[in-house]
Amino acid sequence: MRVAVVGVGLIGGSVGLAARERLEATVAGYDLDASALSRAVARGAVDDAAPTLAAACHGAEAVFVAAPVGALPGTVAAVLEATGPECVVTDVGSTKRGIVSGVDNPRFVGGHPLAGAASAGVEHARADLFEGATWYLTPVASTSGILYERLHRLLRAIGARPAAIDPEAHDVLLAAVSHLPHVLANTLVEQATQALAAGPERLPATGPSFRDATRVAGAPSAIWTDIYLSNADAVAGQLDAAAGRLREVSQALRRGDADWIVEWNDRAAQERVRLMEGQLGAAALREVRASVPNRPGVVAQIALELGRAGVNIVDMALHPAPDMSEGVIALWVAGEWSAERAAELVGGLGYPVALA
Amino acid sequence: MRVAVVGVGLIGGSVGLAARERLEATVAGYDLDASALSRAVARGAVDDAAPTLAAACHGAEAVFVAAPVGALPGTVAAVLEATGPECVVTDVGSTKRGIVSGVDNPRFVGGHPLAGAASAGVEHARADLFEGATWYLTPVASTSGILYERLHRLLRAIGARPAAIDPEAHDVLLAAVSHLPHVLANTLVEQATQALAAGPERLPATGPSFRDATRVAGAPSAIWTDIYLSNADAVAGQLDAAAGRLREVSQALRRGDADWIVEWNDRAAQERVRLMEGQLGAAALREVRASVPNRPGVVAQIALELGRAGVNIVDMALHPAPDMSEGVIALWVAGEWSAERAAELVGGLGYPVALA
Repeated sequence: MRVAVVGVGLIGGSVGLAARERLEATVAGYDLDASALSRAVARGAVDDAAPTLAAACHGAEAVFVAAPVGALPGTVAAVLEATGPECVVTDVGSTKRGIVSGVDNPRFVGGHPLAGAASAGVEHARADLFEGATWYLTPVASTSGILYERLHRLLRAIGARPAAIDPEAHDVLLAAVSHLPHVLANTLVEQATQALAAGPERLPATGPSFRDATRVAGAPSAIWTDIYLSNADAVAGQLDAAAGRLREVSQALRRGDADWIVEWNDRAAQERVRLMEGQLGAAALREVRASVPNRPGVVAQIALELGRAGVNIVDMALHPAPDMSEGVIALWVAGEWSAERAAELVGGLGYPVALA
Repeated sequence: MRVAVVGVGLIGGSVGLAARERLEATVAGYDLDASALSRAVARGAVDDAAPTLAAACHGAEAVFVAAPVGALPGTVAAVLEATGPECVVTDVGSTKRGIVSGVDNPRFVGGHPLAGAASAGVEHARADLFEGATWYLTPVASTSGILYERLHRLLRAIGARPAAIDPEAHDVLLAAVSHLPHVLANTLVEQATQALAAGPERLPATGPSFRDATRVAGAPSAIWTDIYLSNADAVAGQLDAAAGRLREVSQALRRGDADWIVEWNDRAAQERVRLMEGQLGAAALREVRASVPNRPGVVAQIALELGRAGVNIVDMALHPAPDMSEGVIALWVAGEWSAERAAELVGGLGYPVALA
């Protein structure tokens, strides 16, 4: 298999390492920064350092565009231009509405791995960076089912857990679970700096909880300015809501309302347990098979329907009938609940379905 | 040496383990919860499970009160009542104004270690919990110099870095670097829960940065309600300021102000580096000696003067003159800057000083 990576930083480099190690793929790399590209070769993240974007894409079956969000539209368009009808193109940007609405091509599937590291750059790339990590995919009605399936399996093979989601839902969700935490980390750093400036001449030690809470503060502006601005409305909504909540806590404290504080804090404790429990689950895989017509959008429709319902498709396979007019899609999901829910949902879309 | 620990949870238990292991102290323990006390014995955190608070304190040279903030005034008073004139009494509460202003006794020194763990209870106690951790002490003018020195050395011996600070400054600082992060963690959990509730039926995975940012969410209400309420004005001030900052970021996003976002984010990046650098520094120790009159308050005065200036007293020793009318206080500080600053500050208080 031949894979291309356009942008060989932490994420692109890790895709390259994982594809080489786990898929024995040949990986071509391209980066505007020639020095980053040499380092990617030295790190073993790519086999070939391509002189141009088109050269990197030549003959590739899958291309990962790992560029800053602002550079995605132009780069994805160039990659689609440079690749053939059998090549799936995806990106790894942290916001999805902009790029997905801007690209109208059945070969493009928006993507976003929930993986990262404290340090950027290909030097920190790892073949196991995506092991067990959710990797959001945002297919739309025009997305090629065959290419979606290929990308899904490729991501599974490098250890990730692909999950279909609507671009709008993705951006609102990420505003809450990623962009808001980044803004709050910056806020904590600003307030601690101010509090400390009013105190001793030298900054004293802060505790381990402060280090944890500010780990993502001041994430690189070259990446994060684009993320914030491409999701400005959703992030601003989360910030306004957070500001309102902080005022509520402040008012409860000023009136010495112990009952309110206890209830608020206990609720957070319970909610956090539920959030973290949502991560678990190693139930046995069940297969769900559906007969589907061979027309564009069916795979995306099924993937999104299950994604919206919280049913994770662990793996999938398409089996076209000899005349290509229809086919069978096999889905593997974890556990009894997911299998029954998947069958119900796929049946609800009007396709004959069976639990294998 | 005989040490007593009143309240044998994570912190009290760790004091016991450390004192037994590193000081070969005999540690008596007392807890209102008999089961916690048995577990402390089983864990090796205390030698003796005392049947009463007074029995635990009998013959102790130092008593650590590790009770919730709301229970401190009564418990510290009972411990002072149960101990003799040579015994130093301290607490480990997360706020200091209330307890310090409520106790007027030269044998009491308020304290607060910046150490903790994800899990409460003596089962998680460790002898090395305080290794390298800042341990704030809040001496006042009436504090006994001899007993302050004893406590300082005891804390050094169990691995901590004692640092003198005014109770008011402590509470304002902790509102920013500890209490605010806890409230923000709760807020993140609330908003993520709400965002997820609007999406898939089952909660999807959240990324590693979300886990880091919410590690302290929903910390035990039995401990934290007291902390928040005993520092209500300072915490409310931090929350109002944070709400204001979030509104500013929200407005910048809504007007698409990339320059503002870059400047704000770059500033946070620089500030975080400075905050974390403030933790480092393994410079060679220098000794500073001062001749001081033997009267109450001198040691506290010097410790606080240096603490306010950010000069950390790594170790100290008192050498009384034979007639006890005066004495020499030897201070060890790290590095040339600290030594010169310490000499300047102690000299500024009117005491003859020399760099050894």
